[in-house]
Amino acid sequence: MYQRILIANRGEIAQRVIRACREMGIGTVAIYSEGDRGAHYLELADEAFCVGPAKAADSYLKIANVISAAEVGNVEAIHPGYGFLAENAHFNEICRSCNIDFIGPTPEAMAKLGDKNEARELARQAKVPVVPGSEGLITDEAEAMKFAHEVGFPVLIKAVAGGGGRGMRVASNDLALKSALQQAQAEAEAAFGNGAVYLEKYIERPRHVEVQLIADHHGNVVHLWDRDCSVQRRHQKLIEESPSLSVSDKTRNEMCESAVRLLKASNYTNAATVEFIVDGDGNYYFIEVNARIQVEHPVSELVTGIDLIKAQIRVAAGEPLWMKQKEIKQNGHAIECRINAEDPAKNFQPSPGRIERLFVPGGYGVRWESHAHSGYVVPPYYDSMIGKLLVHQPTRAEAIACMQRALAELRVDGIKTTQPLHQEILSHTAFVEGRIDTTFVERTFV
Amino acid sequence: MYQRILIANRGEIAQRVIRACREMGIGTVAIYSEGDRGAHYLELADEAFCVGPAKAADSYLKIANVISAAEVGNVEAIHPGYGFLAENAHFNEICRSCNIDFIGPTPEAMAKLGDKNEARELARQAKVPVVPGSEGLITDEAEAMKFAHEVGFPVLIKAVAGGGGRGMRVASNDLALKSALQQAQAEAEAAFGNGAVYLEKYIERPRHVEVQLIADHHGNVVHLWDRDCSVQRRHQKLIEESPSLSVSDKTRNEMCESAVRLLKASNYTNAATVEFIVDGDGNYYFIEVNARIQVEHPVSELVTGIDLIKAQIRVAAGEPLWMKQKEIKQNGHAIECRINAEDPAKNFQPSPGRIERLFVPGGYGVRWESHAHSGYVVPPYYDSMIGKLLVHQPTRAEAIACMQRALAELRVDGIKTTQPLHQEILSHTAFVEGRIDTTFVERTFV
Repeated sequence: MYQRILIANRGEIAQRVIRACREMGIGTVAIYSEGDRGAHYLELADEAFCVGPAKAADSYLKIANVISAAEVGNVEAIHPGYGFLAENAHFNEICRSCNIDFIGPTPEAMAKLGDKNEARELARQAKVPVVPGSEGLITDEAEAMKFAHEVGFPVLIKAVAGGGGRGMRVASNDLALKSALQQAQAEAEAAFGNGAVYLEKYIERPRHVEVQLIADHHGNVVHLWDRDCSVQRRHQKLIEESPSLSVSDKTRNEMCESAVRLLKASNYTNAATVEFIVDGDGNYYFIEVNARIQVEHPVSELVTGIDLIKAQIRVAAGEPLWMKQKEIKQNGHAIECRINAEDPAKNFQPSPGRIERLFVPGGYGVRWESHAHSGYVVPPYYDSMIGKLLVHQPTRAEAIACMQRALAELRVDGIKTTQPLHQEILSHTAFVEGRIDTTFVERTFV
Repeated sequence: MYQRILIANRGEIAQRVIRACREMGIGTVAIYSEGDRGAHYLELADEAFCVGPAKAADSYLKIANVISAAEVGNVEAIHPGYGFLAENAHFNEICRSCNIDFIGPTPEAMAKLGDKNEARELARQAKVPVVPGSEGLITDEAEAMKFAHEVGFPVLIKAVAGGGGRGMRVASNDLALKSALQQAQAEAEAAFGNGAVYLEKYIERPRHVEVQLIADHHGNVVHLWDRDCSVQRRHQKLIEESPSLSVSDKTRNEMCESAVRLLKASNYTNAATVEFIVDGDGNYYFIEVNARIQVEHPVSELVTGIDLIKAQIRVAAGEPLWMKQKEIKQNGHAIECRINAEDPAKNFQPSPGRIERLFVPGGYGVRWESHAHSGYVVPPYYDSMIGKLLVHQPTRAEAIACMQRALAELRVDGIKTTQPLHQEILSHTAFVEGRIDTTFVERTFV
């Protein structure tokens, strides 16, 4: 097992990894930007290095600085968390050339699955259902038109690189397709330096259902079942739960097994999420692989009893998987609400600043994942998420009741958060009855 | 199900019950003394009534005031929590005569099991092993001497009423027995208004292992397995865990089944704990029944996934038990540390006062049960417990590591607490190796 790990991230996920390392007896090296200087979670690490100015591009994304900290900190491995360098195959390669284990997939598997087009091709080969889509990249309007008329409108334009909804457009007719194509290409070029796009049949009112997996270096891949992340706003997940109500148990099994096939076909190692969309008839289609740990991973931890961060570290260090697929069960129901420093009443504009008072709910079935505390100043430079409130109960109805209770107790004074939106969603009939899709939040609340 | 419940308690357990009620959609009426006026947890209740001055005898123990609050609050049931009126059969009877459900056993079962002598007799009849003891009460010195010479010194003198170590003495020879008998009688008379005592063979270096049970009003009794509470100081539990290392699986099964027999023989309903001591050879002996929910109940909740407070309310309302014995499994390992406002460096003297800053650890496997918060003033009138820190992990070793991590993160500024003692215990070889008995803390730390 490793003696020392660097965590190439900040905030909630940095703290989550540091805690796991402490419990495993592994030393930790944290990094921070000038914007995070003095943050409380850094005190939990054995050592902490400043890697540059507040702007992420000058610090957390600055590969040379991160590698320097790893060298000075004398670590054997780097945990990238999510975001920042977590899916950067180039960084992954540099780690390898510096003889530092990257706690994640190989650069090759990452690059292959990070290219959505290649990933689709792999999925087809592994007999994983995919949304009818263009064969290869779409480079001009004529090709796009041809595809759209073949599969029928609406169609979805997606950037090969990227995620989080950037470089993504829906078009319902010829005219819309022309402008959407240009917009998507320009946006992807600006955001990812890669304007390549492809087209798919657009599934209306889809459910977002994903499968959590972990793979070791000995050819073993297991899944930790599904998560439903249909409660989104502008492609940003707000609430995640497990198991999903959108699929039958038969479909759930098929979907999870197909995700295992896909990772095996990619020689994948470490944690991954295979994302699917599910249509109104319960058919599922592969969308993409997230070649990293995800924000919502605790939902799967609660229902399976498996610590995914510790599992990532153990498999990265070469340990064969210690659990068999048939031993991994979904126990009860878990829900996560992302508490973001945003003002739902003002179009979700960021609300950084000082948290004057933080009161965190506890008690039966409640888990809180956050680096925030009374007096913490939320910096304006990064992701707005300040905490994840999770519950675990025997049934979904009890999980909803427990989350409502916990949300009612949570107090974040001094800044605006998404807490009131979560309270509205949790008590909305459509959510309670499980009649939700990825358009639910925008149709209903904003 | 009930529409409205009064919680006849304060602090941590009052908050625990209020939270459970909220999640069940049951209205709550809280009570408070003048010493608890303005406490934050009271805001979680739908209504709160002051029942008298700070001194417990004038408020929380004042039956007329508690019943008045129940009448005015228009509740159908009272949850007594632990301590105060929780094992007061007279209060229990008054509730019945006022047509208010007491969420606990019947007054008859409570009275029968509350009398340690009667409880021992019941245990003998139910073929539950008991420590060799005096047949009936000991009223004079001669009887005590006779018994001691029959079973051999050391012997234990115990008050028939009471608990928490009061009215309890060990004697190792004739001379010690004489004075110990007088002291125990006087102490029991003063504390419980009942000086009756009995004698037992004293088991040296015993382990304290107890069985959690829940019984419905339809003759069903299930156990939720065992808890080890050997880490005590002056008969006050400090750390509890489940499962116990002190018994083999065979003994565990026998002990749990014998506890079920005892409750069935008593026509018991609602939650109970049957306490045993285990000697160095793994033999177990019944000590007493706690006819109420206990402080350490969350340990059993974590390993079984059963919410005991909700279960208490459901069975009190007449619901038949919804789980079968064979479905109740011990999953992983749970540990609880009681965080008391006491100064371990000054002979555990109470340390009431204002908590300037409270930082609560969270993350994987951590549960926090507490009514305290930054700015909370710990009143000097009551039990010193300000919170319970719990962990749940797949193995005991991981649970210990997780608890060490969580204890290291916990910050209670402004008052002294037992936190540093817990840190010492958790890292002590004897604890880590499970070589603990009820004398461990006093032999080792104080």
